[in-house]
Amino acid sequence: MIKAGIIGATGYAGAELVRILTGHKDVEIKWYGSRSYIDQKYAEVYRNMFQIVDEVCMDDNMEQLASQVDVIFTATPQGLCASLVSEEILSRTKIIDLSADFRLKDVGIYEEWYKIEHKAPQFIDEAVYGLCEVNREAVRSARLVANPGCYTTCSILTAYPLAKEGMIDMNTLIIDAKSGTSGAGRGAKLPNLYCEVNENIKAYGVAAHRHTPEIEEQLGYASGEKIAINFTPHLIPMNRGILATEYASLKKDVSWEEVKAVYDKYYRNEKFVRVLDRDVYPETRWVEGSNYLDIGFKIDRRTNRIIMMGAIDNLVKGAAGQAVQNMNLMFGLDESEGLDLVPVFP
Amino acid sequence: MIKAGIIGATGYAGAELVRILTGHKDVEIKWYGSRSYIDQKYAEVYRNMFQIVDEVCMDDNMEQLASQVDVIFTATPQGLCASLVSEEILSRTKIIDLSADFRLKDVGIYEEWYKIEHKAPQFIDEAVYGLCEVNREAVRSARLVANPGCYTTCSILTAYPLAKEGMIDMNTLIIDAKSGTSGAGRGAKLPNLYCEVNENIKAYGVAAHRHTPEIEEQLGYASGEKIAINFTPHLIPMNRGILATEYASLKKDVSWEEVKAVYDKYYRNEKFVRVLDRDVYPETRWVEGSNYLDIGFKIDRRTNRIIMMGAIDNLVKGAAGQAVQNMNLMFGLDESEGLDLVPVFP
Amino acid sequence: MIKAGIIGATGYAGAELVRILTGHKDVEIKWYGSRSYIDQKYAEVYRNMFQIVDEVCMDDNMEQLASQVDVIFTATPQGLCASLVSEEILSRTKIIDLSADFRLKDVGIYEEWYKIEHKAPQFIDEAVYGLCEVNREAVRSARLVANPGCYTTCSILTAYPLAKEGMIDMNTLIIDAKSGTSGAGRGAKLPNLYCEVNENIKAYGVAAHRHTPEIEEQLGYASGEKIAINFTPHLIPMNRGILATEYASLKKDVSWEEVKAVYDKYYRNEKFVRVLDRDVYPETRWVEGSNYLDIGFKIDRRTNRIIMMGAIDNLVKGAAGQAVQNMNLMFGLDESEGLDLVPVFP
Amino acid sequence: MIKAGIIGATGYAGAELVRILTGHKDVEIKWYGSRSYIDQKYAEVYRNMFQIVDEVCMDDNMEQLASQVDVIFTATPQGLCASLVSEEILSRTKIIDLSADFRLKDVGIYEEWYKIEHKAPQFIDEAVYGLCEVNREAVRSARLVANPGCYTTCSILTAYPLAKEGMIDMNTLIIDAKSGTSGAGRGAKLPNLYCEVNENIKAYGVAAHRHTPEIEEQLGYASGEKIAINFTPHLIPMNRGILATEYASLKKDVSWEEVKAVYDKYYRNEKFVRVLDRDVYPETRWVEGSNYLDIGFKIDRRTNRIIMMGAIDNLVKGAAGQAVQNMNLMFGLDESEGLDLVPVFP
Repeated sequence: MIKAGIIGATGYAGAELVRILTGHKDVEIKWYGSRSYIDQKYAEVYRNMFQIVDEVCMDDNMEQLASQVDVIFTATPQGLCASLVSEEILSRTKIIDLSADFRLKDVGIYEEWYKIEHKAPQFIDEAVYGLCEVNREAVRSARLVANPGCYTTCSILTAYPLAKEGMIDMNTLIIDAKSGTSGAGRGAKLPNLYCEVNENIKAYGVAAHRHTPEIEEQLGYASGEKIAINFTPHLIPMNRGILATEYASLKKDVSWEEVKAVYDKYYRNEKFVRVLDRDVYPETRWVEGSNYLDIGFKIDRRTNRIIMMGAIDNLVKGAAGQAVQNMNLMFGLDESEGLDLVPVFP
Repeated sequence: MIKAGIIGATGYAGAELVRILTGHKDVEIKWYGSRSYIDQKYAEVYRNMFQIVDEVCMDDNMEQLASQVDVIFTATPQGLCASLVSEEILSRTKIIDLSADFRLKDVGIYEEWYKIEHKAPQFIDEAVYGLCEVNREAVRSARLVANPGCYTTCSILTAYPLAKEGMIDMNTLIIDAKSGTSGAGRGAKLPNLYCEVNENIKAYGVAAHRHTPEIEEQLGYASGEKIAINFTPHLIPMNRGILATEYASLKKDVSWEEVKAVYDKYYRNEKFVRVLDRDVYPETRWVEGSNYLDIGFKIDRRTNRIIMMGAIDNLVKGAAGQAVQNMNLMFGLDESEGLDLVPVFP
Repeated sequence: MIKAGIIGATGYAGAELVRILTGHKDVEIKWYGSRSYIDQKYAEVYRNMFQIVDEVCMDDNMEQLASQVDVIFTATPQGLCASLVSEEILSRTKIIDLSADFRLKDVGIYEEWYKIEHKAPQFIDEAVYGLCEVNREAVRSARLVANPGCYTTCSILTAYPLAKEGMIDMNTLIIDAKSGTSGAGRGAKLPNLYCEVNENIKAYGVAAHRHTPEIEEQLGYASGEKIAINFTPHLIPMNRGILATEYASLKKDVSWEEVKAVYDKYYRNEKFVRVLDRDVYPETRWVEGSNYLDIGFKIDRRTNRIIMMGAIDNLVKGAAGQAVQNMNLMFGLDESEGLDLVPVFP
Repeated sequence: MIKAGIIGATGYAGAELVRILTGHKDVEIKWYGSRSYIDQKYAEVYRNMFQIVDEVCMDDNMEQLASQVDVIFTATPQGLCASLVSEEILSRTKIIDLSADFRLKDVGIYEEWYKIEHKAPQFIDEAVYGLCEVNREAVRSARLVANPGCYTTCSILTAYPLAKEGMIDMNTLIIDAKSGTSGAGRGAKLPNLYCEVNENIKAYGVAAHRHTPEIEEQLGYASGEKIAINFTPHLIPMNRGILATEYASLKKDVSWEEVKAVYDKYYRNEKFVRVLDRDVYPETRWVEGSNYLDIGFKIDRRTNRIIMMGAIDNLVKGAAGQAVQNMNLMFGLDESEGLDLVPVFP
């Protein structure tokens, strides 16, 4: 039985970790960390867990935690994980960090986009970017995994095969993404009130969103060049789900079948990536509650562009589900253990 | 491995059956019946099932089905199950009927409220009303189970202990219920369009809803008297969930603890009924996707009434989940097999 | 031109006042009071007002305001209006208070239910309860109007004619009300976050909501007796709208036509109260954005109860619209001036 | 008093026309045409109109109508207006067609994208594309106005000044648009059911949506070249609103102020186009219920692209409001008569 601790267990991503790990036969949650609710019963914060989870919330003591668990999930604001991690801790436990602290290899870019000083740059090189479908082998042996962001998971994987195979002009890539509101977190902020979000759509962080350099770095590795893209997130009135609509110019004239073959080359054996049939486009409702990424695409002969679309549940494949997928790899389990979550519809 | 067939597999309740049975380790779905989509791939109708369910939809041939499966679920409009069932079929397979055909013991009341002739009244006596928490033993040995309605499951169980113990004046009982829109089914009807339901609440079937006699019959059994109640359903803009707010006059002065003790007497060992703590009231979000019924109550000294509240997911405890719970009992399995569904929030 | 000042102009009710008064040909808003946004442009807080309202937000200085305007609207938390009002202010300007400070005639009940000391009990007697359809004449000559609450407006007017005519047993009255989320205000509180409200329904303030004594007092006046009722509010996932479903035992056997005649007696000439046809029930979508109250009812012979239903837009007839209706009366204008708001659907 | 007739008065756009014209002081609706509801009271179809509209629905007899009214609005499916219009009709009345029949000047493109034969190509040349801000003078003298589509109004006006001034490379233009569900109409179709739309986002008509050639034609006129763009619409769970996010490469290095000056040049005196301040982006909630188009933009130095965003209420500026704006011009009224609709929030 793997002993797991969660720091930040009362945010939406942390709560989703609790939901998933509760159904994972090889894991036992030993620590429900939540600074805001110390000593309060977890099931009073998330009443869906009444009679399922009996524990109370604990403080964020990573050192103490490291001596009690095999793996720590940090589902916390940027900067916290980097401020707590140490060689001693990593020598005793594995860490899967759901924040952005170890996602970017260039600490300068991190500090520029996140406006905070990185407190543990010495671990950046070691950290493995936990996009299982791309870095599976590295994840298996990692001590410290940087769990990808929600927008980035969806955006990168949707374009990855074409980037890798050099089929698209990377500098024409434009990603227009739409997210449900759970991605904004559980903080009591006016813009996230029901009446402010409901019956509305807006773009935000235009040409400035922090997931931009993460996408650029990873798709840059895939395509073998330094790239600059446009990434525009939008907030839409639903709880869960991200849809990324991606536009790029094709480098040469290709058929739907040829593109499909490229997707299949990379994802045919990926349980959690489903490449859809011709003229079928992903919708967030079909992946809600599950760890799937659904991908569809259309070639537009008139403009010589390809429109790629990907849909995930931001809290599962975009956060907690992918974290568990990483954990499974790190502990030699079946990669899909605990993740046989059939999408819930309606 | 239990072989199961579903007639009406492409309605919302049928689809939820598919979702739940797909995760049930002892069941294999052999027949996805759907008159509207014969020969079409099930996963093209419900794309969440892409790469999970490969089968195509079949016609509603109950005789043929009876020779192939151990249990048939009918998630169909009223009248269909009664028109298809026969002694021969029941001698070969078990039936769990999610329609209202066998819920009411008085065929006259059925025909009065449903405005259709009952085609198989000879099986009404035999049919067991599948409210597991009340009729568990009878369900175990049943060939034909009438799976309770969504509103009724929630309404009955919320008041049952107090009715049974004679604590409330049954003829003062008023049930004001609110349901998400999946309860209205997947038919393409104007009143169920997004823009008609969204940003709206309405009552419907006022003093005329068909679930009324079902509640009256069952709570009448509990209280040992013939009762007449008011039941008012409302449609609210959400996918899943029913909340029943029930009002009744208390027969004598009782404390919160005394009422709680009565609830505990009946539900302490019931896995799927959670009686909440003092001053905590049920909310549909805390049971969404799960088979739980959450119950809370408040005594109002000023009016000498008790306000009881119950919340379920109408598609799970109110339909497919309860059907599987019944199936588990009928086949001697652990009652919660396949139903360890942690509520999904948000 | 009537000069108006608003204290609390950046709450939802205050903003709705701005919207309505902006379209009122006889009114000019001179003061956009908002403690939280002093010196900030109003249109930066409510961007729908960009290029419509150019003013900045001001402090809550009622004395200064009294010297500049003909009428002050206070759309503020309980207690504020009572703490600011004085004889000198009332001698110079009229006040329409959208808070509860002057709604209850019994200061003891106010202090018991609101848990605050009343700072200006000397004005309670003078204050007129601004339910125009009931107290029209008194409103015309009032200096201080207590604008009714949202739930109360809907609940009282829906039952008023039957209470007044003695047709129902007042102590059997049960009001089950459902409200959109704008009624919860614009405060940045966790329970009002999008993901907490969306896909959920809950009861709250069960047997304890502050609108209870207000309803009891007013319907007590109507029926000529002291009454105690049950009032249960529920929060539902939509922006605007209240539906009240009200149950009461009929004192004698009456027909639909007889009840309709009673409603017509009181409301036939009321522009803003629409009594619906037989078997038509109110829905909040049909009054959204308007000052209408829609009423429907059904008699249940089986239980001898009548089910009355009323629907309003909580921000209009339940707050700002009714306040303007009161203002029109106080200033001798056509009662519907500025309130010819056609309901917006969808 | 202008006499108006509406063909298709019971669709969402038709109903919005009724709402707006009901508040227009110079117009009287004489004909509520609706094939589906002939002889039924209009207020039974749209109950918001109870006690506001007393008329019954009429058939689609354009000839009869032409003899009775000064202007006919056709809010009908593609093809109907073209099949009914004639020289005789146009000699007696003006027509504002909300369908696509007369929007495209090239009948071949119309027939290719709409898959129907055009029944009245002889009027295509005469028809004026009713985008008031662009074609104001031509509209004034038109007999037949082609009211622009919802997506197109928003998409074209958002990019128009930059296209006209040659600031962007037109063939890099990508428009990613998101629409509320009222745009899908009031037909009882499965994909538009509440549970299918709620908690979901999807792209549709990818590289194939019929509004594409309309945008290309109009922006082609503006830029003086033939262009091909990508236009991708998405359906999101809200009633009203369209947000268009548009990407294009800048032809030269320009500052925010320079771009703002270009927008101001075209829109400074346009009442219904609001160009927002720096770093403010449009949101559909701020225009809901009104005739405004809000525009914001951001220059991305990293990619040398400009991201332009526009938001409208699809039923107002995208349909009925713009139709009334056109009518005002055609009849020599103040262009904003009846359109002083303050956006409704929340």
